[in-house]
Amino acid sequence: MLESQPQRGVARLLSWIEDEDPRAVEALQATWSRTGNAYVIGVTGPPGGGKSTLVDCLAVHAAAQGHVLGVLAVDPTSPFTGGAVLGDRLRMNDAQKRGIFIRSVATRGHLGGLTATTRYLVNALELLGCDLVFVETVGAGQGDVEVVRLADTTVVVEVPGLGDEVQAQKAGILEIGDLLLVNKSDRPGADRLAQELRSALDLGEQHDWQPPVLQVTAIEQAGIAETWEAIDAHRAHMEAGPLAADRLVRQMHELEQQLQQKLFRDRMVTIGDDALRSSAQQVLARKADPFTAIERLAN
Amino acid sequence: MLESQPQRGVARLLSWIEDEDPRAVEALQATWSRTGNAYVIGVTGPPGGGKSTLVDCLAVHAAAQGHVLGVLAVDPTSPFTGGAVLGDRLRMNDAQKRGIFIRSVATRGHLGGLTATTRYLVNALELLGCDLVFVETVGAGQGDVEVVRLADTTVVVEVPGLGDEVQAQKAGILEIGDLLLVNKSDRPGADRLAQELRSALDLGEQHDWQPPVLQVTAIEQAGIAETWEAIDAHRAHMEAGPLAADRLVRQMHELEQQLQQKLFRDRMVTIGDDALRSSAQQVLARKADPFTAIERLAN
Repeated sequence: MLESQPQRGVARLLSWIEDEDPRAVEALQATWSRTGNAYVIGVTGPPGGGKSTLVDCLAVHAAAQGHVLGVLAVDPTSPFTGGAVLGDRLRMNDAQKRGIFIRSVATRGHLGGLTATTRYLVNALELLGCDLVFVETVGAGQGDVEVVRLADTTVVVEVPGLGDEVQAQKAGILEIGDLLLVNKSDRPGADRLAQELRSALDLGEQHDWQPPVLQVTAIEQAGIAETWEAIDAHRAHMEAGPLAADRLVRQMHELEQQLQQKLFRDRMVTIGDDALRSSAQQVLARKADPFTAIERLAN
Repeated sequence: MLESQPQRGVARLLSWIEDEDPRAVEALQATWSRTGNAYVIGVTGPPGGGKSTLVDCLAVHAAAQGHVLGVLAVDPTSPFTGGAVLGDRLRMNDAQKRGIFIRSVATRGHLGGLTATTRYLVNALELLGCDLVFVETVGAGQGDVEVVRLADTTVVVEVPGLGDEVQAQKAGILEIGDLLLVNKSDRPGADRLAQELRSALDLGEQHDWQPPVLQVTAIEQAGIAETWEAIDAHRAHMEAGPLAADRLVRQMHELEQQLQQKLFRDRMVTIGDDALRSSAQQVLARKADPFTAIERLAN
């Protein structure tokens, strides 16, 4: 099925994964040996940062160099916003002509956690021959950090003028960036923000790879080529050494998540919802503390 | 220990919970029968919404009415921003004179998930006699939604002028609000935002409780009394009926999370890290698909 009409088959597989349809597992098992060939670039940052415009520009740039591109826009916060995101994008037909496959997915990650679900969506795109996949997240919370955990290169996008509390959040998000972009750099405060980011990086832990800070204005195509070069440089750095070990650690983490969920589902089949309910009632009534209740449910 | 010097004992317990110190479990077990007495108000919304100022104002207002208040500012995104948040707040001494205990916590929720960990922090504050606890989250992602899952009343704070992508996020966050606040209502666009929120609520699923949309300017104390009345009205609604069932569902969910983690930890003791690593290697080398690998690890 996936052979004869790859695009339609893969579109169906993507929906199955998103909808937690059991056929997704079968299809992924059947095609597993043909997946794993894409380099994954994660793009995250606070809402309002212009991530989708930026990713579209980078995708067009990379496609012009011969890459076959997948773009996944993942929204872990809501099942309702998926459609809205796609509205702004490269028009589908136009994108496919250039060898770019864009998919917007609203998933809470039922298929073994958000990272694993996104990984399977990437695998599905690999069946179309994508050798590069952008995974872009819509929000800016823990869920998003989790999604980009599957990326080989992570791009963090900031914009000037989002206020102080946003600045405070940077500590959390800076840690995961291999490349920091100040988008909308035609706005006031862009230079200062770039400088602040550089200072924050200088103060932080030093690694083999020093994340560059670039200023771009995606909507005017300014800085796209430079960004692409920086991504390529990071990729070269990774492929020259740390990539294999990095992927192993991430795969272990994904298996852990999935194992955790499976063990729980299997145990729940034995103990049943009633036992869980009655434990919760005892905890609320202060007849049992939660730690003792958990011990009893587990054994 | 907790008896003789309650504040110091509780401060220590809060740190143990935050640091995942095993002594936290013992202390929580020993004091469990004395906890469970606070009504919990969750406050969430996008970064830059002025949540901490708002919570401070509401806490001072409630303390003046005789409540003993706890305030937990939870930052699930980073272990580094905890200190920064507290800098803006009511000064600690001043707050304690009014019967308000403020604690800023940076936790990723190791003690059975973020909701459970925050629950234990609330329990610790209850040992100080707090009958009302505000749980405020710093970011605006999935982690935050998870944190406020333990709240009896949830307040969602929005502000005008955060851009379109933020608006799109509202779908996810609106669902959890029992009360919607437009803060910084002295800014342009506040009336329109309030109107948009009301329309969005009208379009959504209708429940017994229709969430009110209020405009406030916390920094000028405008709308605080009205907000407090609306919280009280929701509390009266909850206590007249749905609260007990609601708390039961949430407690069940917390136990589920904790059970899941415990089953996994116990299993990992048996199989060990090496088996996990070798499974991950096989998956990456396409010698086994992840679903088969998980089956093997589980059995």
